[in-house]
Order: sequence, then C-alpha cells, then structure tokens
Amino acid sequence: MLASPLHAEETSMTTLPTQARALRSTVSRSGQLELKLVDTPVQAPAANEVIIRIEASPINPSDLGLLLAGADLSTAKAEVSNGSPVVTASIDQKVLATLSGRFDEEMAVGNEGAGTVVAAGDSPAAQALLGRVVSVAGGSMYAEYRTVDASACLVLPEGTPARAGASSFVNPLTALGMVETMRREGHSALIHTAAASNLGQMLVKICQADGVPLIYVVRSESQEATLRSLGATFVCNSASPTFLADLTAAIFETGATLAFDATGGGNLASILLNAMEAAANAKPGAYSRYGSNTYKQVYIYGGLDRSQTVLTRNFGFAWGLGGWLLTPFLMKAGGETIGRLRQRVVDELTTTFASHYSHSVTLEEALDLAAITDYARQATGSKYLITPHGA
Amino acid sequence: MLASPLHAEETSMTTLPTQARALRSTVSRSGQLELKLVDTPVQAPAANEVIIRIEASPINPSDLGLLLAGADLSTAKAEVSNGSPVVTASIDQKVLATLSGRFDEEMAVGNEGAGTVVAAGDSPAAQALLGRVVSVAGGSMYAEYRTVDASACLVLPEGTPARAGASSFVNPLTALGMVETMRREGHSALIHTAAASNLGQMLVKICQADGVPLIYVVRSESQEATLRSLGATFVCNSASPTFLADLTAAIFETGATLAFDATGGGNLASILLNAMEAAANAKPGAYSRYGSNTYKQVYIYGGLDRSQTVLTRNFGFAWGLGGWLLTPFLMKAGGETIGRLRQRVVDELTTTFASHYSHSVTLEEALDLAAITDYARQATGSKYLITPHGA
Repeated sequence: MLASPLHAEETSMTTLPTQARALRSTVSRSGQLELKLVDTPVQAPAANEVIIRIEASPINPSDLGLLLAGADLSTAKAEVSNGSPVVTASIDQKVLATLSGRFDEEMAVGNEGAGTVVAAGDSPAAQALLGRVVSVAGGSMYAEYRTVDASACLVLPEGTPARAGASSFVNPLTALGMVETMRREGHSALIHTAAASNLGQMLVKICQADGVPLIYVVRSESQEATLRSLGATFVCNSASPTFLADLTAAIFETGATLAFDATGGGNLASILLNAMEAAANAKPGAYSRYGSNTYKQVYIYGGLDRSQTVLTRNFGFAWGLGGWLLTPFLMKAGGETIGRLRQRVVDELTTTFASHYSHSVTLEEALDLAAITDYARQATGSKYLITPHGA
Repeated sequence: MLASPLHAEETSMTTLPTQARALRSTVSRSGQLELKLVDTPVQAPAANEVIIRIEASPINPSDLGLLLAGADLSTAKAEVSNGSPVVTASIDQKVLATLSGRFDEEMAVGNEGAGTVVAAGDSPAAQALLGRVVSVAGGSMYAEYRTVDASACLVLPEGTPARAGASSFVNPLTALGMVETMRREGHSALIHTAAASNLGQMLVKICQADGVPLIYVVRSESQEATLRSLGATFVCNSASPTFLADLTAAIFETGATLAFDATGGGNLASILLNAMEAAANAKPGAYSRYGSNTYKQVYIYGGLDRSQTVLTRNFGFAWGLGGWLLTPFLMKAGGETIGRLRQRVVDELTTTFASHYSHSVTLEEALDLAAITDYARQATGSKYLITPHGA
C-alpha cells in the first residue's frame, strides 16, 4: 500500500521525485504548536552521500519532546490544508519559556529509521550501498526521503526488511549503553524501570547473555508475566503490597547499586536509592554515621512521569542521581566502543534487538489526533512505526 | 578554669590520670537516645602513639548525626547521675529504623580537635611531638584525653593555641575539597549555599586567592553583608524577590556549573539546576531538544533542611545530583593531594582557615538542654567549641 497515489513514481529505484514530503514541528512565539507535512526538494547526492527511501521509522519516547514540544494535547485541533493534515495545540507558558531556542523554526523530526538506498554519490563507499537496506540515526527521519553521508549507514544483512532495522540505534544502543555504563562505573548488577518496554525486553536478553543480574521494576501483573516469560528472575511489581520488601531483597541478592529509570517523576528514584541503602545496611557491620559507604546511582533516562522528582534522603551521602542520554554516552565511550556495540546490534538484529510495533502509520496517519493522543501516552505495549510509503 | 575540680591533677604534663571523662551517645533498641559522660581508662601509649590532652573540639554539623541520632529534641530530658549530666530523648520509629547498626552501643563522638601532647611512646616520631600542640581528626574527640597514632597529628606552628587549631580538618579540607572537586570534574566556577558559615567564609578566601569565581547563596541581608565585607562579588539572597534573576545572571557571568548545597531539602537544588540550565540556554544557538548540552552538577554535602528534596526537571538530561562527603573525597584524591591540602591548612591556619566560635562549653555544658537545642539548629553565626579542660 502506498502512502499517497501522488507519490507512486518514487518506488522506482531509478526515478527520484524532485519533491518529497517530510513532517515538521513548529513552536510559535505565541505558544502554538503546529505539526504539518511539507514538500522538500530532493537534490542529487554529493560524492559520499546516499539518498535513502525511508520505509520505516519508529516513534520513540525520545522523539516526542521535539515532535510535541510538551503541548497540551487536550487543546489539539486537526484540519486539512492543501490536502494535507495540519495539527495545532497550545503550549503552557511555563513550558514555552524553555522552548525559546526553537521559536518559529520548522523542526524536522525522527531520530532513526531504515530504508533502501535509491541514489548514491560517486564515491566507492556511497556506490557500494546502492540497493541495500540500511538503517541510520541522523534525525529528520519522518520523511519520504533522507540524504545522509554513507558512513552514517548501518548496512543490514541481505534480505532484512526495513521494518526490522527501523529501531537499530536508539533502543539497542541505549540498552547496550546501560550495561556498558554499569561496567565503566564499577557496578555489577542493574535495576531497570518500565522494564516491559521494547527497550526493557532487549535489556533482559543482553543481561541473560552477558550474565548480568537484572532487577525489573514493572507496574502491573501482565508486565510481570511478559518478563517472566522471557526468563527474568527478579521482577518487582510496584503495584504489589510487597513491592518494597521484594525490591530490597532482590537488591540484597544481586548487589545492584545502579538503576536506570524511565519515569523520572514522583518517588521512584527515591524508593530505589532507599532500597539500595537498606540492602547495604542489611550487611553485618555496615553501620556508618553518614549512611552506608556503598555508592548508589540512579540515572533518569526518560520522562514518562513529568511530575516533580521527590527524594526522601534516608540513603546517606554515597549516592548520585542524574540524567542519562545516549548521545553524550556514545561521545564519551568513543569510536571503538561504538563500533563494537553497532556490530552486536547487526549480529543480533532479529533476536536480541527485535522490536515489536502495535501500529503502522503513514506520515498523514501519524498526524491523526487519536494516534497522537495514543503514542503521546508512551504506554508499554503500544508502539508506533511510521511507514512513509505504506506498510 | 577547669572543667571539674576532681580532675585538677590532669593539667600537669607529667602526671596523667588513670581515668578520664568522655562523652558517649547511645541509641537503645526501644528508641531512646542517651547522652552521658563516662570514665575511661588512660593507658600508656604504644611506641608510635601519643596522648593528647584535648583542649578544644568543635561541634560541627557533621558531628550531630552521631551525637543526636535524629532524636526529637522536644522530648529531651536532663538529669544528673553520679554528679554528671545524663540527657535522654525519644527517636521517631522511622528514624530509628535507620539506626539498627548502633543499637545499644556507646558511641564516642567528636570528629576533630586540638590539644597538647602530654605523653608519647618510645618511637622518635612520637617523642618529637611531646609538648607540641597538635590537631587531629580521629573521632572520639569529645573527651579529656585521646590516644592517637603520631602520624595522625597535624603539628601546629609553635605558639598556636589549641583553640585556633581545633577546626583544622573538617571545614578547611571540605572547603579545599570543593575547589579540588571543581577542577577534577572540569568545572571553572562554583556556587555555595549557606555561604555565610565558617566553611563558607573559608571558601570565599580560597576562591579569592585561587581566582575561582564563586557565587554565594545566602538567606538574609545580614549574611549578604558579611560576605560582601569579605570582598564577595556574586552574593544572591534567596529571600530577595529578584533571587532567581540574580542567580541566573551570576551563573551566566561566571559560567558556574557546579554547586555545593548544605541544605539538601526543599527545592534549592532544583532552583540551582534550573538556573544553570537557563543560563546555558541564554547563549545563542544553544537550543537542543533534550535540554542544553551543558553538564550541571549539584552536590548535597549537608542536611540543614531535613525535608524532601524536590526537583522540577526543566533542566534536560545533562545533570547530576549527589551526596558529597569529605572522607570518600579524600580517599579518592589520594595521599599526595591530602598532603598538599593539609600543608595549606597549616600555612593559612590563622588567616584563610580562621574559625569563629560563639560559645565555649565544657563537656558538662555541652549536655545542657538549652545548649543542645541551640547547636542542633545549626544556625549560621552560632558555633560551639567544646573545651574539656575549660576555656
């Protein structure tokens, strides 16, 4: 199925359109979000560039900040302009104050995606990619076509559909980055919240393969069941009356002193730090006047809960709470590590790093109000894939 | 003046008592704090040990956790047993749960102090200290005498009174440690809260000497005046209606991305991180979808405010909040650094590192209910010095 009959000619590898559609998100100085599709010129690639026909691009939590700009979706309105959807919504003044850097600029959106290389510059590296399915994390992926440097492409094994490679970067490298961070910072076990997500399921498999004890914090019995079916041992359900005791016992048994929290708000980070402290103090002879000497770290890597983070500091002074983002981690980790992690993603793309999507939508359908409301919730189990040329 | 006529013979350098008094803090399993003075044996020093007649020991915020165990001081009662004061107070069940490691143990208290070496073991290192005034940070300093290894002693310049060396470790090394931490972690300017304290005033002088821009956050106009009289430029009063604007402007001007917060509770850490983020985003072209790329760090090194820490996370993902304590810092910094910092303390003991005390109390007077209530408040400007043999 094609996204639009007007663009049927683009499916030919030899004939490129002169214009292609792309999604844009704009925040006006007056506090209005506007989402729309624009026509952008498709230009001949430079020597080391390739043009990718984007066939699949996920909507990740990390895309939503740029896409939706924290707008109040209860105010969202949809209309059609020149045959194309336009969505508008109001942005609260407090949120707006943090967005001055993007006022009135049409921002391209979409961190990662995959598709077929349909044109290539003259360089051998670019030419070698012609006809191959590649994945890339270059931004601006919510578009029919995307021109990138050949070196940015992760070449997928022959026969891999773009859909299978659409999420080759953000979730796989984030999951691998968590385990790398654990090793680099001297921890030996991990805690992960929102653990039933696509990312969480990848982490289950990585930790099983690498022998890393992993404690999964989930919010429902069905999520608990999902993880146990994957072989997870330490699953703690925050909705259970025994949650705190379960968590502390699991930390005591695994020695986990590092947690990655996708929620950010509320008291979950505080609960994690206090449980780590309680587990540390449960060891004989551990008493110290300033709390335990065991260093405890929680990284917030998402914002599922936008409310305030509240810490009840009964966990001494040997602790850290911080933000964690993939790109700064990769920059610190360096080229050798990045190459090693990327290779592992390619090798295990259809096993460890398989992603599951509940919805495939075209660019137009991604601007449907019901769809926006749904993917903005970031509910575990609901995951959108944009297929600009149809699924 | 002597602390007690019963102990008059101890003032002789040649005659040591067989028993000496020391303060003890005990938490019972049932939730009762007990403070009292006990008689402890004074034994002959081992070859490399010296016996210090403790003449001055400060009550630092870092002593209060061990001393008062978070007890509810509104329940405190004083009585006299065998001619010596005994104070009791109740401990809340929640706090008590964190104290199981010290149940029913008589804990010696007092992180640091100074006094005269009145006996020494046979080793040349120990003998060399006889008659010298030394300072030491070995714990158990709220006592008439303390036996320590000769190597633990910081020898004060001839003629320095013990009172001037009583606070040679905790505050001076903490202030120096903050500047060291700043350099090690790649920051170039500092923010300090509760900045009018003894520690804060030391930090003013260190930063002036070292050319480090320092922003002072204080809570009143009188504290602001104290710091301005020392030559501080960037003083922000949190009670002022222009506090947020003042703070952000000072951060923009100094480039401060590291703060040391003595309060811990409430929203001060959040205000600091948000102001750093606002200052970072005020630079042209700084907009990023995940917040600025400027790494922002706040260390909580005290607990003046025991309430919850509340973060409003409008500061992206490049941030960290953590605990900071002197001892782990020194252990990480290593011997060369410790030696360098200690030498600077000796060299500048009566200038940069001069401490001011509002009250001198004997061991008995330190257990007076009014005194306890006063020093437990940790009010800036109120600072207690214990002088076990009289001031």
